[in-house]
Amino acid sequence: MHINDFKSVVDRYEIIFFDAFGVIKNYHGLVPGIEQTFEYLDKTGKEYYIVTNDASRSPQQLAESYHKRGLMAITQDRVISSGMLAKEYLDLKVHDGIVAYLGTPNSAHYIESSDLHTLPVGEVDEHNIDSVNALVFLDDEGFDWFRDLNKAVNLLRKRNIPAIVANTDMAYPVNMHDVSVAVGGLADMIENIVGKRFIRFGKPDSQMFMFAYDTIRERRTIEKKDIVMVGDTLHTDILGGNKFGLDTVLVLSGNTQKSDAETRINSTGIVPTYVCETAVINLD
Amino acid sequence: MHINDFKSVVDRYEIIFFDAFGVIKNYHGLVPGIEQTFEYLDKTGKEYYIVTNDASRSPQQLAESYHKRGLMAITQDRVISSGMLAKEYLDLKVHDGIVAYLGTPNSAHYIESSDLHTLPVGEVDEHNIDSVNALVFLDDEGFDWFRDLNKAVNLLRKRNIPAIVANTDMAYPVNMHDVSVAVGGLADMIENIVGKRFIRFGKPDSQMFMFAYDTIRERRTIEKKDIVMVGDTLHTDILGGNKFGLDTVLVLSGNTQKSDAETRINSTGIVPTYVCETAVINLD
Amino acid sequence: MHINDFKSVVDRYEIIFFDAFGVIKNYHGLVPGIEQTFEYLDKTGKEYYIVTNDASRSPQQLAESYHKRGLMAITQDRVISSGMLAKEYLDLKVHDGIVAYLGTPNSAHYIESSDLHTLPVGEVDEHNIDSVNALVFLDDEGFDWFRDLNKAVNLLRKRNIPAIVANTDMAYPVNMHDVSVAVGGLADMIENIVGKRFIRFGKPDSQMFMFAYDTIRERRTIEKKDIVMVGDTLHTDILGGNKFGLDTVLVLSGNTQKSDAETRINSTGIVPTYVCETAVINLD
Amino acid sequence: MHINDFKSVVDRYEIIFFDAFGVIKNYHGLVPGIEQTFEYLDKTGKEYYIVTNDASRSPQQLAESYHKRGLMAITQDRVISSGMLAKEYLDLKVHDGIVAYLGTPNSAHYIESSDLHTLPVGEVDEHNIDSVNALVFLDDEGFDWFRDLNKAVNLLRKRNIPAIVANTDMAYPVNMHDVSVAVGGLADMIENIVGKRFIRFGKPDSQMFMFAYDTIRERRTIEKKDIVMVGDTLHTDILGGNKFGLDTVLVLSGNTQKSDAETRINSTGIVPTYVCETAVINLD
Repeated sequence: MHINDFKSVVDRYEIIFFDAFGVIKNYHGLVPGIEQTFEYLDKTGKEYYIVTNDASRSPQQLAESYHKRGLMAITQDRVISSGMLAKEYLDLKVHDGIVAYLGTPNSAHYIESSDLHTLPVGEVDEHNIDSVNALVFLDDEGFDWFRDLNKAVNLLRKRNIPAIVANTDMAYPVNMHDVSVAVGGLADMIENIVGKRFIRFGKPDSQMFMFAYDTIRERRTIEKKDIVMVGDTLHTDILGGNKFGLDTVLVLSGNTQKSDAETRINSTGIVPTYVCETAVINLD
Repeated sequence: MHINDFKSVVDRYEIIFFDAFGVIKNYHGLVPGIEQTFEYLDKTGKEYYIVTNDASRSPQQLAESYHKRGLMAITQDRVISSGMLAKEYLDLKVHDGIVAYLGTPNSAHYIESSDLHTLPVGEVDEHNIDSVNALVFLDDEGFDWFRDLNKAVNLLRKRNIPAIVANTDMAYPVNMHDVSVAVGGLADMIENIVGKRFIRFGKPDSQMFMFAYDTIRERRTIEKKDIVMVGDTLHTDILGGNKFGLDTVLVLSGNTQKSDAETRINSTGIVPTYVCETAVINLD
Repeated sequence: MHINDFKSVVDRYEIIFFDAFGVIKNYHGLVPGIEQTFEYLDKTGKEYYIVTNDASRSPQQLAESYHKRGLMAITQDRVISSGMLAKEYLDLKVHDGIVAYLGTPNSAHYIESSDLHTLPVGEVDEHNIDSVNALVFLDDEGFDWFRDLNKAVNLLRKRNIPAIVANTDMAYPVNMHDVSVAVGGLADMIENIVGKRFIRFGKPDSQMFMFAYDTIRERRTIEKKDIVMVGDTLHTDILGGNKFGLDTVLVLSGNTQKSDAETRINSTGIVPTYVCETAVINLD
Repeated sequence: MHINDFKSVVDRYEIIFFDAFGVIKNYHGLVPGIEQTFEYLDKTGKEYYIVTNDASRSPQQLAESYHKRGLMAITQDRVISSGMLAKEYLDLKVHDGIVAYLGTPNSAHYIESSDLHTLPVGEVDEHNIDSVNALVFLDDEGFDWFRDLNKAVNLLRKRNIPAIVANTDMAYPVNMHDVSVAVGGLADMIENIVGKRFIRFGKPDSQMFMFAYDTIRERRTIEKKDIVMVGDTLHTDILGGNKFGLDTVLVLSGNTQKSDAETRINSTGIVPTYVCETAVINLD
């Protein structure tokens, strides 16, 4: 397996898409030195976007979380999250009534609109259930799993409404040793039980990449061959980027370890254009 | 769809296997009149067994729950539960150490043995994790879903131990309108997340029927053609009974309504030998 | 279930996406009277596109097949096929060498380019296998299933190359009573056997809709709310249209019969914005 | 990973179950030296059985194929095949009419009985289709894949009859480098297309092991702890043996290479009781 130098890869493209977790940040905070990468990109006139399976917070809050850690380069308009696609879906397809949700109040806040009222699944009852016109899976926190996962199952059995999964990840790391079940894993379970088709947003689905691509093309002309997707996960970042027609970089700073990258690439058939140790560009 | 009279079906067999929920009992208690069925079976010298996906209690406790409701015919030795298969597996394959479990203390009690100590998943910690030699999914109650499902995921990532699912049902009815996620549904989610193969006991798996068949054959000679399986669910009772080579009766008193029985039989390809309204035999 | 008048639905939108099979044509040829629909659309200044899971022929040949039957309205630039997405993928991601394919020579012709040579899987041998850089599933005809499906399996075991499925349908109707296994069904089997992730193009995947949407936006400004998707299949046309944020019309002239439309909508949770008997607009 | 000596493992049990392919034979013929293993077992009074996913021939023909290669120890009564379970199912559950099959005439011969007539799927037509009461998947050879797989799909759409898969393997090795799609892989594809539940026989399903266990217990008293299952495949031999409550031996002479045995055991969670290089016992 040939390991490429990240800086020399980046030099071949005009626009860089970054996955967040495992590339720019991890459970300790920012990946050490990553601010140099964005310094380099700014200096060389490259555009960059964070393309992330995250529906727990608004793009503004996601950007602020980078600022608090000292990375000012990531502004709100550079963040493309799966939660934004869920919001777009609701804006286009659900015209009134209540959107029930599983997640924190924070995750629900930004999908609210003047026409749509959000309500935690735990507060759905016989008086308001007939006004519920969609169910959204936003976050694995903020609710009582036993009570509210069962309520979500019964809501979908009683009301034939769309179920939207705003983050398709099944698990996420919480520290060096442990993972936590993500809202995508909970949604898969409920979909299997109720036997209805859910609507999923998030990598590897192409709609994530389209949304970013469209956002850029509203301002400038660009072609897919000028964009590279950088991520740490074969099944989301690399598979999705490849399918959308982008070149892809697997970095070994997150989900995929150097020791088993080659085995995994061969066993899954998901082949990145490049493999790099890290997305950090050392400017010294 | 031809509807048969249950009594005339039963008259053709020597041994009757009954599913419990939806056949003998429902969320209100016993199916009204069902005691007459067992009176008739006793009078005509038929043998009968309850073959049930249930790991929440011991066979003795399951039998007692019928006695409390006035059905004395169901004795402990007539109950074959998926929990008994989980116990047999542990007795044969796990020789020492701790068996971690998800479920109530009651469900754990009867899988204990002189060599195996049971421990709720919630009490697994860094001091005892290396002694945990199996994980058993027993019941959906008795634990904190958020904390303990996540602990179960991480236990299986750290220890390469068998995960045993003692009840494969994905959901069960709690009243006329609502269902609850069963431990089989929780286990499916965790299996998908950790990517390892779990060991499942319960209908439609043949091992359930084999266990009952073996139990009988230790006392008498019998052939499969002399046994009929009575159940309310196509995917467990009927599919499993058919595959084991038994004749099967679908009763319309539970999961499968008369209005959609024919549609479901045609769409699934799971065809019972007979369809009956109920397993109640009216002796008047 | 409320049945809408197709003309009054169409009047609310600027652009109409049509599925082909079951909507405009069936195994007898054109749906009788469908030319009036396009006459009406032309008269009222609506734009229309055929959005079809078909990789058996080029858009030009697909258009010609309508012309031969007397429907001149469907021009080549109105046809968006899943085969076009496969071609775009190859153009962007496979830069040289051989593209092996399953399908007819006709299906392979239009994915050829100056840099990519196509070769039937049956002609892959030890001398050229190292130059094969992709495998494309184009059509279920044109090859020996026994020999070439086995060759495809072994090609993917020996070469870690992308496998592209240019039509995700699992089966298609060949007459009133019979279906035929489609190339998507064959691809699913091979993916399960080799255990690698294939790249699929075709409804319900969003990339199909995106391709059409992009094609339009290169010429004019449009919003998703001005487009309606018309199809006969819940799992492809309606699910995909809904997810992309379009309004959707289920017509009852193909895969979904009037007698079971409501049952299927309720059991799948895939809800079209409208249900119409047919896409034919009677101008008399 | 600790490697055990096969002879010292065998000494701890009274009965040995062997998988055939990858353990006793491979594509060259017998595993060199394997006859010494059976010489040793005979000398030490151990019983042994071949427990094999094979429905291409009768047990008698399977035994003869060993005799022709010089291994006389494998007699017909020592062979337990998945085809025998398919035959038992038909004897118990299909009382008259035609059994359509996919496979060679040879594979069909031994499932015939006085009451059941077998017919290749290719010969099913409008005159006899109403007499077809079951479809059996026996072998991947002996028929025209294109014509007959499509005929099988349409047969199952028109007749609500049981579909029996007599060998669940998805692929099998044909030489050092290549595999061939097995009838289990073809059956999976057709099951997905028609959407009905098929009935499968073969490891890892418990019914295979029960059949062998029952066969033995008709002659003698035995307990599960006295039996060990020897196989080369984690997902069939080892998973199935473990679940049935047997101790298991993974041998490294077939599907599982020494170089990746440990990785696969850890990633699947399927843990054999022992790992041995080979099932050959060197008597020198």
